[in-house]
Amino acid sequence: MAIRAGIVGGTGYTGVELLRLLARHPDVEIKAITSRGDAGKPVSDMFSSLRGHVDLAFSDPAQAGLDACDVVFFATPNGIAMEQVPALLDAGVKVIDLAADFRLKDVDAWAKWYGMPHACPGVLERAVYGLPEVNRALIRGAQLVANPGCYPTAVQLGFAPLVEAGVVDVANLVADVKSGVSGAGRKAEVSALFAEAGDNFKAYGVGGHRHLPEIRQGLSAIAAKDVGLTFVPHLTPLIRGIHATLYARLTADCDLQALYEGRYRGEPFVDVLPAGSHPETRSVRASNMCRIAVHRPQGGDVVVVLSVIDNLTKGAAGQAVQNMNLMFGIDESCGLELVPVLP
Amino acid sequence: MAIRAGIVGGTGYTGVELLRLLARHPDVEIKAITSRGDAGKPVSDMFSSLRGHVDLAFSDPAQAGLDACDVVFFATPNGIAMEQVPALLDAGVKVIDLAADFRLKDVDAWAKWYGMPHACPGVLERAVYGLPEVNRALIRGAQLVANPGCYPTAVQLGFAPLVEAGVVDVANLVADVKSGVSGAGRKAEVSALFAEAGDNFKAYGVGGHRHLPEIRQGLSAIAAKDVGLTFVPHLTPLIRGIHATLYARLTADCDLQALYEGRYRGEPFVDVLPAGSHPETRSVRASNMCRIAVHRPQGGDVVVVLSVIDNLTKGAAGQAVQNMNLMFGIDESCGLELVPVLP
Amino acid sequence: MAIRAGIVGGTGYTGVELLRLLARHPDVEIKAITSRGDAGKPVSDMFSSLRGHVDLAFSDPAQAGLDACDVVFFATPNGIAMEQVPALLDAGVKVIDLAADFRLKDVDAWAKWYGMPHACPGVLERAVYGLPEVNRALIRGAQLVANPGCYPTAVQLGFAPLVEAGVVDVANLVADVKSGVSGAGRKAEVSALFAEAGDNFKAYGVGGHRHLPEIRQGLSAIAAKDVGLTFVPHLTPLIRGIHATLYARLTADCDLQALYEGRYRGEPFVDVLPAGSHPETRSVRASNMCRIAVHRPQGGDVVVVLSVIDNLTKGAAGQAVQNMNLMFGIDESCGLELVPVLP
Amino acid sequence: MAIRAGIVGGTGYTGVELLRLLARHPDVEIKAITSRGDAGKPVSDMFSSLRGHVDLAFSDPAQAGLDACDVVFFATPNGIAMEQVPALLDAGVKVIDLAADFRLKDVDAWAKWYGMPHACPGVLERAVYGLPEVNRALIRGAQLVANPGCYPTAVQLGFAPLVEAGVVDVANLVADVKSGVSGAGRKAEVSALFAEAGDNFKAYGVGGHRHLPEIRQGLSAIAAKDVGLTFVPHLTPLIRGIHATLYARLTADCDLQALYEGRYRGEPFVDVLPAGSHPETRSVRASNMCRIAVHRPQGGDVVVVLSVIDNLTKGAAGQAVQNMNLMFGIDESCGLELVPVLP
Repeated sequence: MAIRAGIVGGTGYTGVELLRLLARHPDVEIKAITSRGDAGKPVSDMFSSLRGHVDLAFSDPAQAGLDACDVVFFATPNGIAMEQVPALLDAGVKVIDLAADFRLKDVDAWAKWYGMPHACPGVLERAVYGLPEVNRALIRGAQLVANPGCYPTAVQLGFAPLVEAGVVDVANLVADVKSGVSGAGRKAEVSALFAEAGDNFKAYGVGGHRHLPEIRQGLSAIAAKDVGLTFVPHLTPLIRGIHATLYARLTADCDLQALYEGRYRGEPFVDVLPAGSHPETRSVRASNMCRIAVHRPQGGDVVVVLSVIDNLTKGAAGQAVQNMNLMFGIDESCGLELVPVLP
Repeated sequence: MAIRAGIVGGTGYTGVELLRLLARHPDVEIKAITSRGDAGKPVSDMFSSLRGHVDLAFSDPAQAGLDACDVVFFATPNGIAMEQVPALLDAGVKVIDLAADFRLKDVDAWAKWYGMPHACPGVLERAVYGLPEVNRALIRGAQLVANPGCYPTAVQLGFAPLVEAGVVDVANLVADVKSGVSGAGRKAEVSALFAEAGDNFKAYGVGGHRHLPEIRQGLSAIAAKDVGLTFVPHLTPLIRGIHATLYARLTADCDLQALYEGRYRGEPFVDVLPAGSHPETRSVRASNMCRIAVHRPQGGDVVVVLSVIDNLTKGAAGQAVQNMNLMFGIDESCGLELVPVLP
Repeated sequence: MAIRAGIVGGTGYTGVELLRLLARHPDVEIKAITSRGDAGKPVSDMFSSLRGHVDLAFSDPAQAGLDACDVVFFATPNGIAMEQVPALLDAGVKVIDLAADFRLKDVDAWAKWYGMPHACPGVLERAVYGLPEVNRALIRGAQLVANPGCYPTAVQLGFAPLVEAGVVDVANLVADVKSGVSGAGRKAEVSALFAEAGDNFKAYGVGGHRHLPEIRQGLSAIAAKDVGLTFVPHLTPLIRGIHATLYARLTADCDLQALYEGRYRGEPFVDVLPAGSHPETRSVRASNMCRIAVHRPQGGDVVVVLSVIDNLTKGAAGQAVQNMNLMFGIDESCGLELVPVLP
Repeated sequence: MAIRAGIVGGTGYTGVELLRLLARHPDVEIKAITSRGDAGKPVSDMFSSLRGHVDLAFSDPAQAGLDACDVVFFATPNGIAMEQVPALLDAGVKVIDLAADFRLKDVDAWAKWYGMPHACPGVLERAVYGLPEVNRALIRGAQLVANPGCYPTAVQLGFAPLVEAGVVDVANLVADVKSGVSGAGRKAEVSALFAEAGDNFKAYGVGGHRHLPEIRQGLSAIAAKDVGLTFVPHLTPLIRGIHATLYARLTADCDLQALYEGRYRGEPFVDVLPAGSHPETRSVRASNMCRIAVHRPQGGDVVVVLSVIDNLTKGAAGQAVQNMNLMFGIDESCGLELVPVLP
C-alpha cells in the first residue's frame, strides 16, 4: 500500500522539486499540497513542468487532512513547521522538515540565529538530524527528521572522513562554498533578479550565516569536541548546484584517497572520484548524488576537499525522500535513481 | 557652462545607466537624483559601480531643486512624470521622460493601454517623440521629449527605410523581438528571478503589449497610413540587449542594401552591416549603437531585417542623452562615444 | 528479453542524452558505444554524470559487434551513417539515425544542402521520417528511421494542425526559432564558447539553413502541395531548449484552440496549453514533451503559434527512443516518463 | 605627440580589450595589430564591437613596423614574446607583455611551469613586474614590463596589506579564487563551450596552477621571506570577473579596516569598501578597478579578504595601459576613467 504523503508549502523550489520526485516514486501517493495563498489553484498552473504528472490543486492547510497522511513534508519558511508539527506527531504522522526549525539542538542558539523563540523545545529533542551517511540508524527509527541545509550537507559530507579519522586540526577548518541562486528560494527579492545575480559573483554573510552553527554542531558531534570553522558562502550565477571547497591541515599522515573510498563504500549517494579529479556541479544536476574529490596540493600538509551536490536534491528534496525511504523501511534509493542531466 | 541635470527616480536600471553616462559627460553636471524611499542614501551605496564617479546622495523630490535645473530626466514608473512635468515646463526646464507618459499622441489609446487617465493631455500635444533618426529637427526645438521604448527603438529603426521607401506591404508587418531581462526593470518580481528567467526562453504579451501602439503610431506616421503589425516580445536569458527580427513582403523591386546604407549614411548611432551579416547583441553592449542587417532569403519576396540595440542605452538612457545633446545644441555624440564591451 | 542497443558516436550531446535515457529504460540493454578516438575509455570518464549508471567503455567501431544488436542508433556527424547503415540493414538490424543522412527524400537536394553526394540513395527511399505524431504507423513498420532535426520537430508540430486543416495561407509561413547552444553540438568552436555565446543573442543562417528543406518537405507533404516558408534560426544563451514562434495568415475562420486540442488529444508527448498561455522552454527541460500554445492577436487574421521542446530530448535522443519503442511494439512512452527539471 | 602603439596578437580577449581601451585613449595612436593567421582582415570584421572605432586591418608580424612604435604590447600565447622582445628592446621600443614570459624571476621555475626553456634569461632580469600598487617606481623607469596574471593581481592586492604589515602567519595562506570563463581565452576548447561551462561550477588545477609560483614570488618579495600558499582556482559561469576569497591567521592584533584604507589611500584603482561589505564582480565590470573588503568573522583570529577585479581589465589589458601610462610619464588614469557597466 502506498505511503500517503502531504506537503505543506508547495510553492517554492524545494516544493516543486519534492513534487518532481514524489510524482514518480513508486511507493508514494501525494494526498495534499497546501498553500494558504494559492488554495484551489491547480499545482500545474503554477509549475507547468508538472502538467500530466501532478493533478492536485493546492489546498487550504486547515482542510488538507494532513493528519490522515503517513508522512508530511514541510517545505515552508523557517518558523512554520514548529507551530504545526506537535499536533501531527500526536496524530501519529511522521514528519520531515526541510526548513531549519529542528536542525539545531541548542534552543538558545536557534533563537539567536533565527531571531525568534523556539515554539516547541520539547519536540526539538526528539528530532533526528537527517544526514543518512552519518545518522542512518537513528533516522530509521525517527518520527521527526530535521532535513539538513544545503550548505551543511555538502560541507559535512566533505569533512566527515577527515574529522572521524582524527587526522586534521579541527580547530582551524575553512569552508569556502558556492551556491546556485535557487538556494535563495522563489521569493521576489531584488538581489536574486536575473539582472542582479546573472554574470555576477559575490560572497555574502561573511560575518555569520545561519548554516554556520548547523555545520559546527554536526562536525563537533563527529569530532566529539568543538570544532573551529570559518565558513564563507558565495552566490554564483548557476541555477542549481553547490560546490564546497574545504581546507584543513593534516596532523597525521594518511592515505586520503583510501580514507574517503573506505568511508563511503556502499553509500548509494556519495561518489568518491579517482585521485586528481575535480567534480563539477552539473555532474550531479537534478540528482541526489554527492561527488567528492580529495587533494593534497604539492604533497604539503593542507588537504583540499571538493564536494558537489544539487542544492535542491541532495541539499533538500532528494535527501528528504531518502530520509522518508529510511523511515518507512523501503529501499533507500527508491524513487531516486536519477541520471544527472548533462549538459 | 555645464548643463545642470536632475534625475527623478534614480534607483532603477535606466537610472543607473543614465548616471553611468552623465557622470562622464563633459558638459553635464548632475545636480540632483531623487528617490522618495532612499532619500539621504549615497547613490554609490546602492550601486557600488558608481563609487568614485557619483558623489551625490538621493534627495527627496520636494527638496531637490529640480526647477533650477536646465534639464530633468524622468526615470520613473509610468504615470509619475505626467504629474510633475507641467510645473517644470512652466519653470522653463527642459524635460526628457524615459517612461511612457508622453509617447502616445492618442490620449484615449494611452488611457486604455496604461490603465489610467492621462493627467495632462494638453502637455501631451507639445511632446516630441525622441527618435533622432526620424525626428531630429523637432527634437532640437523641443522642451519636452518622450524618449522611445526599447522595443519601439529597435523595431522602428529596422523598418523605417522599407516603410519610407514604400516598397513593402505595410498591412502585414511582423516583428519578432527578443529582450534581455533588464528590460523588466529592477523590481522584485518572481518572473524576473535568476532561477526563473535563467536558462529559459519564452514569449509574453502575445495578446497585446504596450509597445504595440507606440510602434504602430511611429510606423504609421512614416507610412502616412495605418500599418498592420504583429508584434511578439520574448524574454531571453541575457542581461542587456534587444534583437528584433522583422519580416515584410516586398511590393516593389529594390536594392535593399543600398536603401539601408543610404538611409542611415552619416547617422552616428545606426550602423548598417555588410550584406549577409548577422548582428549580435553584444556588438552594441553598453553602447548607444544600433546595428542592422537586411536579408532577402533565397531571393524571394520576403525581407528579413535584423536590428540590435542595448535596451538600456540606445533603448533608454543613451538615447535620452542623445536627445539632450540635440536639445542643447551640442555635438549629438557627446558623452556617447562608447566602445561596446565585448566579450 | 531486453532490446540490445548499440550507439555509434557516443561522445556528443545527443550521445550522452541517449545514454541518460537508455540507462534507465527498462527494456533496453546497452551493448556497445563506439568512438574511434576514445576507444577503451570508460564512458563515465568522459561524462561523470553517468558514473554508476553506465559501466561500458567506448569501443572501436570495427569490434563493437553492432550487427548483433537489435537496434543501432547513429549519433554521428552528417555523412557517417549513410556509409554504415546498408550493411546493418542487411544484417537485420533496425537503425535510427539522429543525423541528417536519411531525412530528405530528394537526393539532389540532400547533396546540395549537405555538400556531398549521398552514399546510398536506394536505402534513402526505405527510410521513414521519424515524427511519430505524423508518421506513427509507418514508423511501427520501419527498419530504418530518420530521426527529425530539432528545429523541424518544433516547427512541424507547431504548424501541422493549421496546415492539415487547410485554414492558413501555406505560401507565406514564417518560422522564427530560437535554440539553446547545445544544438551546436559538443565541438570545439569559437562561436559556441561561453564567452561568445553567453549574454549574447543573434540570428544565423538567414540566407539558408539545412533544416529549411527538411521542414518544407514535411509541411508540403502534410499540405499536399508546396509550402512557402521563411525560416530564421537564432542562437540564445540557454543550454537546452527550442522556442519556435510561428506566423501564418488565416484563410478561413476556425476555432484554433479546439483545432489544436483535437489534433493532439491522446498524444503522449504533445501538450496543448490553455488559451492565452505562453509556454517556456524550461517547462520541458530534460523531458520528451512538446508544449504548444496558439494565439490570434487582437482577433486579427494572423495566427501565432508558440512551440517549445528540449532540443536534445524531443528534438533528438528522446524522440529516437520514442521511435525505438514504436519500432519494437512496446509502450511508446516507455523510459520517457520524465518530469521536466524546473527550476 | 601621440604614443605610437603596436599590438602583437590581437585576436584574443586581451587583444580586443586592449583595443577597446586604446581606441579611446587620448594620447595613443594604434599603429599596428598583428596576426599571422588573419593578416589583411579588418579588425572590425572579427570584432564588430570595434566598427567605427578601429579602422586597422591585422598585419603580418614581419611587415608591421613594430620597431618604429614607441610601445609594443604582446597579447600572445606564452612563449611568443620572449622570442621577439630582445630585438624590440634593442630598437629602443618599450614593451609590455601580457603573457607570462617575463613574470617569474627564477628561470628554472619558469621552464618547469611553462614546459619550455626560456629564450632570453638575460632579458628576464631586466623585466619589471607590472603591479603598480607595489612596483610603481620601478615601472616608471622600465623598458620591459611583465604584466601580472589575472589571479595574481586579485590575490596580491588582497593580501599585500596584511603581508606588508607582518600581522598574519604567512606560512599558511589560502587563496580560493573564482574566475569568469573569458580567463580561459578565445580558444576553441570543449571545456569552455557554453554548454559545458554554463550553469556549471568547478575547481581545476588544484594540484598546481601556473599562477601559484607567480603569486608566491610576489608575496614572498613583500614578506621578505618565503610564504606558504594554497591556491585553488575555480571556473564560474560569468564572462568577466575574478573574485578572490583569501584566508589568513592573525598573529598580532590590528585594526584591519584602517590598515587597508591606509595602504590604498590615493590609489586610483584600488577601492577599499566600508567594513562589513561584500564586493561583487559586476561592480568592477569593464573597468580597471579592484574593490576589496576585509572581514574578521565573529572576531576570531581568521582574516577573510574579498577582492574583485575584471580579469580582462585590471587583470590584463587595463593594467597594461596603466603600466604604459606610468612608463610614459602621463597621468596614470589616462584612458582608464571607465564607469563599470552595471547591470
